[in-house]
Amino acid sequence: MVSTASLAIVAAVHLVSAGASAEPFRETLISTEQNIDVADWEICGARVTPGCSTPWSVRKVALHGGKQEGVSLIVVDNGKLRLTVVPTRGMGVLSVVMGDARLGWDSPVKEVVHPKFVNLESRGGLGWLDGFNEWMCRCGLEWMGHPGPDKFITNVGDEAVMSLTLHGKIANIPARDVEVVVDRESPYRIRVWGRVDERLFFGPKLELRTEISTEPGSNSFRIADEITNDGAQDQEFQIVYHCNHGRPLLGEGSTFVAPVARVSPFNATAAKGVGTFDRYAGPTAGYIEQVYCLKLHGDQEGRTLAMLRNKAGDRAVAMAFSTRELPCFTLWKNTTAEKDGYVTGLEPGTSYSYNRSIERKLGRVPKLAPGASRRIALDVSILSGAEQVGEAAGRVRAIQAGRAPRVDREPPKLD
Amino acid sequence: MVSTASLAIVAAVHLVSAGASAEPFRETLISTEQNIDVADWEICGARVTPGCSTPWSVRKVALHGGKQEGVSLIVVDNGKLRLTVVPTRGMGVLSVVMGDARLGWDSPVKEVVHPKFVNLESRGGLGWLDGFNEWMCRCGLEWMGHPGPDKFITNVGDEAVMSLTLHGKIANIPARDVEVVVDRESPYRIRVWGRVDERLFFGPKLELRTEISTEPGSNSFRIADEITNDGAQDQEFQIVYHCNHGRPLLGEGSTFVAPVARVSPFNATAAKGVGTFDRYAGPTAGYIEQVYCLKLHGDQEGRTLAMLRNKAGDRAVAMAFSTRELPCFTLWKNTTAEKDGYVTGLEPGTSYSYNRSIERKLGRVPKLAPGASRRIALDVSILSGAEQVGEAAGRVRAIQAGRAPRVDREPPKLD
Amino acid sequence: MVSTASLAIVAAVHLVSAGASAEPFRETLISTEQNIDVADWEICGARVTPGCSTPWSVRKVALHGGKQEGVSLIVVDNGKLRLTVVPTRGMGVLSVVMGDARLGWDSPVKEVVHPKFVNLESRGGLGWLDGFNEWMCRCGLEWMGHPGPDKFITNVGDEAVMSLTLHGKIANIPARDVEVVVDRESPYRIRVWGRVDERLFFGPKLELRTEISTEPGSNSFRIADEITNDGAQDQEFQIVYHCNHGRPLLGEGSTFVAPVARVSPFNATAAKGVGTFDRYAGPTAGYIEQVYCLKLHGDQEGRTLAMLRNKAGDRAVAMAFSTRELPCFTLWKNTTAEKDGYVTGLEPGTSYSYNRSIERKLGRVPKLAPGASRRIALDVSILSGAEQVGEAAGRVRAIQAGRAPRVDREPPKLD
Repeated sequence: MVSTASLAIVAAVHLVSAGASAEPFRETLISTEQNIDVADWEICGARVTPGCSTPWSVRKVALHGGKQEGVSLIVVDNGKLRLTVVPTRGMGVLSVVMGDARLGWDSPVKEVVHPKFVNLESRGGLGWLDGFNEWMCRCGLEWMGHPGPDKFITNVGDEAVMSLTLHGKIANIPARDVEVVVDRESPYRIRVWGRVDERLFFGPKLELRTEISTEPGSNSFRIADEITNDGAQDQEFQIVYHCNHGRPLLGEGSTFVAPVARVSPFNATAAKGVGTFDRYAGPTAGYIEQVYCLKLHGDQEGRTLAMLRNKAGDRAVAMAFSTRELPCFTLWKNTTAEKDGYVTGLEPGTSYSYNRSIERKLGRVPKLAPGASRRIALDVSILSGAEQVGEAAGRVRAIQAGRAPRVDREPPKLD
Repeated sequence: MVSTASLAIVAAVHLVSAGASAEPFRETLISTEQNIDVADWEICGARVTPGCSTPWSVRKVALHGGKQEGVSLIVVDNGKLRLTVVPTRGMGVLSVVMGDARLGWDSPVKEVVHPKFVNLESRGGLGWLDGFNEWMCRCGLEWMGHPGPDKFITNVGDEAVMSLTLHGKIANIPARDVEVVVDRESPYRIRVWGRVDERLFFGPKLELRTEISTEPGSNSFRIADEITNDGAQDQEFQIVYHCNHGRPLLGEGSTFVAPVARVSPFNATAAKGVGTFDRYAGPTAGYIEQVYCLKLHGDQEGRTLAMLRNKAGDRAVAMAFSTRELPCFTLWKNTTAEKDGYVTGLEPGTSYSYNRSIERKLGRVPKLAPGASRRIALDVSILSGAEQVGEAAGRVRAIQAGRAPRVDREPPKLD
Repeated sequence: MVSTASLAIVAAVHLVSAGASAEPFRETLISTEQNIDVADWEICGARVTPGCSTPWSVRKVALHGGKQEGVSLIVVDNGKLRLTVVPTRGMGVLSVVMGDARLGWDSPVKEVVHPKFVNLESRGGLGWLDGFNEWMCRCGLEWMGHPGPDKFITNVGDEAVMSLTLHGKIANIPARDVEVVVDRESPYRIRVWGRVDERLFFGPKLELRTEISTEPGSNSFRIADEITNDGAQDQEFQIVYHCNHGRPLLGEGSTFVAPVARVSPFNATAAKGVGTFDRYAGPTAGYIEQVYCLKLHGDQEGRTLAMLRNKAGDRAVAMAFSTRELPCFTLWKNTTAEKDGYVTGLEPGTSYSYNRSIERKLGRVPKLAPGASRRIALDVSILSGAEQVGEAAGRVRAIQAGRAPRVDREPPKLD
């Protein structure tokens, strides 16, 4: 059964819930400690959860050829939606398909590019763009914004300057551990666990543990992350969930819907379009990206909801999360020609995408104490029909509570 | 049957010729869309073209160990010559062997290096040299010349400066599609098709489609390329066919033979040797490369012929192509010690090897409109015996038609 | 049988000793020329050397998952100690385990990282730190010290400036040839041969041939290297053996024991601690590395011995080598928190770790003539019990012969 109830803005339940009486199904698909990386693998609901009437499956698929050689996909089909995770690319989500709906976009990058073919340092620090085509990829963890110089600590303990690369490293680090866990009892939640380490000597020891999960027959799924500092000193970190949409949700007349408290244009180009920041044009050759830095209202618990809605108002994606976990929301509009990548990004994060040196100055680069963790959850639903879409929009209005957003006409002065 | 008729300078026939009544043999060896990369594979003429009296074969071989791990070769043996294509390195041609003749050289790079072990950014942008040992590798496509700063458009639409790397990216991009196609009817042409994408987000969307083909029993083969701009905006491109020769064609007394209209030394070092630009010394330890930028005469259709001929005049390679497709010809002389790479490059291209910023200023960086393509063909023959060599030299003389080349004593002033 | 006799400071016998009457066992595990890279493989003493009463084995293991995908290990178990070589990472030695003793450390880098995931250019030239966790890795060969600008010769023969990367390339180059050779006659020496090429066009043509060997039942092993210049011109090279120790040899109160002629602090931070350069603190969060440049005394043949000894004096590692082969000894103290990498490096080398431009100026960058080789051997023993440890310390004292070390209070003036 699917209902808009899956939109309920509740506190995130992280990782496997305790208390199930039957042991969940578990299978390790990748483990560097156990020296495991299974090639092609599949399970289905009929065998694992015979009591579940919705047929579901999970597959691991090895990709071959070109820049895809060595990439693994994990495809979760919950009977209603099909979600494709890419362990090789930092546990990003390539796409989510539900009938004729899709979360994803048509990037000019056509292959699922193995990190071994990506040089983040290339193109003046823009090499990340060589592999960018996921619906959701994480930016971070040591830094996550625009390229350019920032200070760091060298191997001899000196503060020096290095050139940060666009959007950090995490999307190009292969997961070191992946496990599939399925509850044996209703609602038979299907969970893909992954761990990605961003570690080096004389540098951060950050660990990302993610659980991407859904229930058979649901139109929703959850991304529940935990970021831990395994080092012995305080460690800065940043993360943004770069969630990218093209057809069919994005089109001429689509709108961005969220309880906006304040919107600031990222730069002069964005300032020109700030009056229509929440409305989308059709594909426009030569369009220059417009980026907006948003503050969203949350409810009493800080929970909020951001949507991308099509023109007809009968399709939408809704992302629910906590503004305490993710206080900065970036809206990236790139309604260029289809061939160049017609896309918009809805991007909740700890920070905005200015270079870390700027974000630090503005107090937006959090730190983790030794051994400390930060938990973050995103609940994502694909909405079909005017009723579901309208109900979600109603929740946004309820959080907005009639407060007009503050609109900055000029980008912030950063010097 | 082999004859110098294969040297005929005719307009290039691109891709598979139409009109064959029997369906050609086809086998997909690599396809990212079909998730195919066959490991070891072989076909032979006896099974595919029983009517063909010349035994031929095509093999795909996976390389293992060291920096070769993951590299694939496609070896075409037409019964007379054996041509080795490297899909993993941008569909370059490693070598062509015909009896005791060889197109190729003895590079100090001894392995067929997988791109994952090449960092183009290293060594101040000279990392390309870590994998350079093919007879023919393409330089390009977004840029193809010397390293150094040039402008480009960033992810925020700004013009910025990046550091180009030597000879571009295409030789270190693995082919995403490879197919073998063999005509079932005489002359039973054997074709290796490949596609290599040089694409990124906020960057070029260039596609290279190549057909490398030969006929059973022939001393010739053809490289027919098509470069397409799949983006929605005009796109600059550059290509050079970096065709490199060592023993046995190169040796003391070997000569370069072509209908030269003009020769310009690339730099001061080359200027010193411009008087003997078309003659080769034996291996000379400490020799500094001498590079010449040539304009060649073509016939009425613009077709021309460039040769490397041994001292005895009984061996040669001849390359036939169109000066309209490839207006710039670079002659690279590097007659250093054998251990350091005794080699000369015959390099037809769209441009010379100055940094793109210079080539652009001089009008030598072509553009492709959205969806537009450029076709380029090279016909290469290995010539044996004074008769074949003499006939080809006669064709060069016919195109030269007694016109003396203009010889620049100084390199161009570039500032 | 194990005795301290294995510490005997004798001239190194390189490569396989001649004169064995029975042909040794040989197996090629990796060969780029023969296109071999065996996956999982094992031999054991019972089959190869039935006359040997000590059970031994050699295994090749392929690692899977995360950044380990594609890495091979060679595990030599001589019946007493287990030594793990990493062909994929330049024939480094990951660890050596003997009962509850271990040569190695707990790096924050937890995976055995494949070079395809290491970008040496990243982090301002500190990308090497992404994969650093071996007991012994070689730094070199074209350069081996700290990152920063130094001159080099470009592809056009010009002297230009490139940015060297930390510790050079050799530890991130996969071996192109690996062979296991076992003598059929007593003492049944077990040898792992490897070859790693650091070659490029317009650059060095350096070859490293290593033999890592041990005898069944021994507490010792030997690393015997040969570095060859295969180019036609003089070639600079540098090498350091970066041998890193954590628990159990390193701990509060551990000492460095060697016949020290002179000690110089690497920089101002090290100068502060020069008075206790040979004594170790326990894990100290926020500790900044202290590096000392040592000159060691040798015996008449130049042989010397360096030890790391635990506080109780009942455990030690002893490294014997020639000061003529390795005139510069670096002691790296990094007694930071366990989580950040509590470690010390005992590092004999041709040079110290200053940038090559400095080492060259100070005459510490040797050259190899065309075709010339340099041989280097390290004999390493794990010592157990006060008797073995005391005997080795006695040998150090004998070489020291009562001469007080000269202690520089200030780092050298380098400008």
